[in-house]
Amino acid sequence: MKLLRYGPVGNEKPAILDQNGDIRDISGLITDFTTEQLLPENLKKLTKVDVTSLPVVTGNPRLGAPFVGSRKFLAIGLNYADHAAEANMPIPPEPILFTKTTSCIQGPDDDVMIPKNSKKTDWEVELGIVIGKCASYVDKSDALEHVAGYVLINDVSEREFQLERGGSWDKGKGCDTFGPIGPWLVTSDEIGDPHDLDMWLDVNGTRMQTGNTRTMIFDIPTIVSYVSQFMTLEPGDIITTGTPPGVGMGFKPDPIFLKPGDQIHLGIEKLGEQRQAVVEWQERSD
Amino acid sequence: MKLLRYGPVGNEKPAILDQNGDIRDISGLITDFTTEQLLPENLKKLTKVDVTSLPVVTGNPRLGAPFVGSRKFLAIGLNYADHAAEANMPIPPEPILFTKTTSCIQGPDDDVMIPKNSKKTDWEVELGIVIGKCASYVDKSDALEHVAGYVLINDVSEREFQLERGGSWDKGKGCDTFGPIGPWLVTSDEIGDPHDLDMWLDVNGTRMQTGNTRTMIFDIPTIVSYVSQFMTLEPGDIITTGTPPGVGMGFKPDPIFLKPGDQIHLGIEKLGEQRQAVVEWQERSD
Repeated sequence: MKLLRYGPVGNEKPAILDQNGDIRDISGLITDFTTEQLLPENLKKLTKVDVTSLPVVTGNPRLGAPFVGSRKFLAIGLNYADHAAEANMPIPPEPILFTKTTSCIQGPDDDVMIPKNSKKTDWEVELGIVIGKCASYVDKSDALEHVAGYVLINDVSEREFQLERGGSWDKGKGCDTFGPIGPWLVTSDEIGDPHDLDMWLDVNGTRMQTGNTRTMIFDIPTIVSYVSQFMTLEPGDIITTGTPPGVGMGFKPDPIFLKPGDQIHLGIEKLGEQRQAVVEWQERSD
Repeated sequence: MKLLRYGPVGNEKPAILDQNGDIRDISGLITDFTTEQLLPENLKKLTKVDVTSLPVVTGNPRLGAPFVGSRKFLAIGLNYADHAAEANMPIPPEPILFTKTTSCIQGPDDDVMIPKNSKKTDWEVELGIVIGKCASYVDKSDALEHVAGYVLINDVSEREFQLERGGSWDKGKGCDTFGPIGPWLVTSDEIGDPHDLDMWLDVNGTRMQTGNTRTMIFDIPTIVSYVSQFMTLEPGDIITTGTPPGVGMGFKPDPIFLKPGDQIHLGIEKLGEQRQAVVEWQERSD
């Protein structure tokens, strides 16, 4: 299944994408795609729904993040060997873990704001793991049972905040609008092998990143098992798994960073596409 | 006001601590102390309640964390000069920011579990800032208007996970049970100057940490203003502000770490006290 949420910010409704690519509103049956809805038993119930009986959503509505209520938005750094090389960092002996804020999560096509005082806002196309069942000290062999599905994520990053302001990377990873997620949560059964998905990212029509999830250093079972040694992963927790080469800071002779007016377009095979306009920082309306 | 929540895990009720130290149940008026309840207008409404008219809770109930729904649990590292020295780390030129998980939050007196494979679980008495109003790019001079109040926090830390496993400190800071918070949320008006509060921590009856919030390197307005340059702080977000000297890893000639059977007792002037039993890791019941 492809689960999604559509409608204005804060008033999204749950829906399912059908075989024809039509959005089918499921709000008559379910209030929202909460973390509770990601539990295996609840996803199983959803598969019993006759999608063709649900109303088709017409027009071209805004999409929100495909579920709500995540309590952890974790990230693995330098998980593609080529990206580690372009970032001038060694291949890590074990996964690098850092944290994005849940307050940076937004819809897949919502504007990305350049933070005030930012000169180095950058892009990162990534596959995100969505947890469906609590995971604590799970073995690699059991890890995928704890995964509800996968999402496309742009792990937007401010490189000066991340790397030049001391301490952890977290200062440059959780800025408002730095977490576009979606368009869909694609459940595990629809993905097949998550380690063979093409991924790409364009800025203003120029291909910047090209990769495939097969070149991850630490694969998905390893990541889930590893992180679960340090904390209990809960339904709705997200782990974004690192980016392939082609980020702005890696360009030679000079890095390239985002500026207002830029258009970002990214995708991962089977997980859909995102398009973001880059804009100056503006006050949130809430 | 001193806001608190009492009762079994997951079924806590909101209450106010009265002038005599009695717990007064306010669940007849308010469902729970959610992040929404921390907004200035809602805290103001609470001050109109005649606390003496609320039912007294008898016995000695378990306390939960004093509010629910935090989306960010941030932390400032090395914010006491003496502690930086004992950790063999330089005084940071700007605040070090890292992230604890919201899933590590628990009641003030709940057991602290030693993670599996942990040899270096350590304690840190800290003052926590609780945000009451969205804060984005706020000036130092306005920062305290965004603070609902303060809490006592034990920033429990696993030093090997934090410092010897690569990447950020986050691996050693968000383990299950590593975030005892409370007993109360003390609203700002009751604190007076938050930069003149004595703080201490005992293990098995021996004083380990002694300090005062006046020796913070970066004060509370600076921290709130600083963090708000990187992300919007929202009601219910917590920023724990660093610990004074006396953590286990700083002991000479050999560090001292927590083991099952240990008893931790800590407090900050005006913010109350916590007592935790240290236990082996055990499966969560949920």
